[in-house]
Amino acid sequence: MNIAILGGTGKEGAGLAMRWAQAGHSIIIGSRDAERARGKAAEMCAASKTKAITGDGNAAAAALGEIVVVALPATGLGATLPETREGCRGKVVVSTVVPLTFGGPRLFTPPAVGSSAEEVQSLLPEARVVAAFHHIAAHELADTEHPIECDLLLCGQDAKAKETVAELGRSLGLRPIDVGALTNAGPLEGITAVLATINRRYKLKNSGIKITGL
Amino acid sequence: MNIAILGGTGKEGAGLAMRWAQAGHSIIIGSRDAERARGKAAEMCAASKTKAITGDGNAAAAALGEIVVVALPATGLGATLPETREGCRGKVVVSTVVPLTFGGPRLFTPPAVGSSAEEVQSLLPEARVVAAFHHIAAHELADTEHPIECDLLLCGQDAKAKETVAELGRSLGLRPIDVGALTNAGPLEGITAVLATINRRYKLKNSGIKITGL
Repeated sequence: MNIAILGGTGKEGAGLAMRWAQAGHSIIIGSRDAERARGKAAEMCAASKTKAITGDGNAAAAALGEIVVVALPATGLGATLPETREGCRGKVVVSTVVPLTFGGPRLFTPPAVGSSAEEVQSLLPEARVVAAFHHIAAHELADTEHPIECDLLLCGQDAKAKETVAELGRSLGLRPIDVGALTNAGPLEGITAVLATINRRYKLKNSGIKITGL
Repeated sequence: MNIAILGGTGKEGAGLAMRWAQAGHSIIIGSRDAERARGKAAEMCAASKTKAITGDGNAAAAALGEIVVVALPATGLGATLPETREGCRGKVVVSTVVPLTFGGPRLFTPPAVGSSAEEVQSLLPEARVVAAFHHIAAHELADTEHPIECDLLLCGQDAKAKETVAELGRSLGLRPIDVGALTNAGPLEGITAVLATINRRYKLKNSGIKITGL
């Protein structure tokens, strides 16, 4: 699969890019700065020992991807996504965005619409948005020799889009679990606040979650 | 320990009551209707083969408990808690409340204050509120022969209160995990929406969660 990762120069996006490249997918890293994306892509090819990662501006990357992954900061969605709307039309768009505010009175700070994934859907109304990959620690992704000890929880309106994302997860060795409609994205994004707090409190970098009884 | 459980005639409260009675604690079930609480307590003594469960009205139960567990429906807090305020003064109060709305447009529906636990704190301002026990399925609690396959995630402002609640969890064989301040209660309560959706979608009754990497 051709996978565009908007915000792919960040830790989480870069970790997914390297894991997917090693699993045989082709990756286009998107950034506001196309040159920066190309430079990062070259570094990531070297680090992952593949030639499968290229870079471009966000709008060009979105147009090139068969699947588009939004790995942007929660506060940057409104500034970046409108220019990618045409490129995302009709496509599976994966939101990994987590609305966390560090250093404020409250860590989990979802937008009024309920979740960052629902904000992505409102900015890309023709996209088939699936919320997923919020819980896989960037540190866990970066250590590419090591299997990832975390379930893949995902939600969205479109069953076929969810199956495509589940397959992307299986290609990384993850167990996908369907958590219903996109209105459940807030609770999924909130779990990242739980894991971030556990990481800080117990001096970890890679806590994750597994569903039991399944 | 003497543990009062407000809303202890509901499934989750009753399951906790029986497990704690078997672990050697004394339980006072609270209900709006003291007679109903006494009847339920007698049934629960028979079912758990203990004599450790009694019943009373909510305010009397709260006054009798060393620890008070709030296992009320999310929509009933404002009607019930004010009469228990004196009984809860200075005590560890555990909120197991989850703000879910079944059959509406959105399953997870926290109050404006951020979480049901924060609503409990606002109604019981002198209590030492800890949010916990949201994820242990009632069905899992009821099957008392069986170890509970789920972690105990808890949060609150008062470290000693959290340690008391952690000990209550250990007495049921659970691993307690400290998830920081009470402002993280929303994300903890939201996990119950995730588990309820998984139960429905995969035809389960007792999905739970475990934190990995810890």
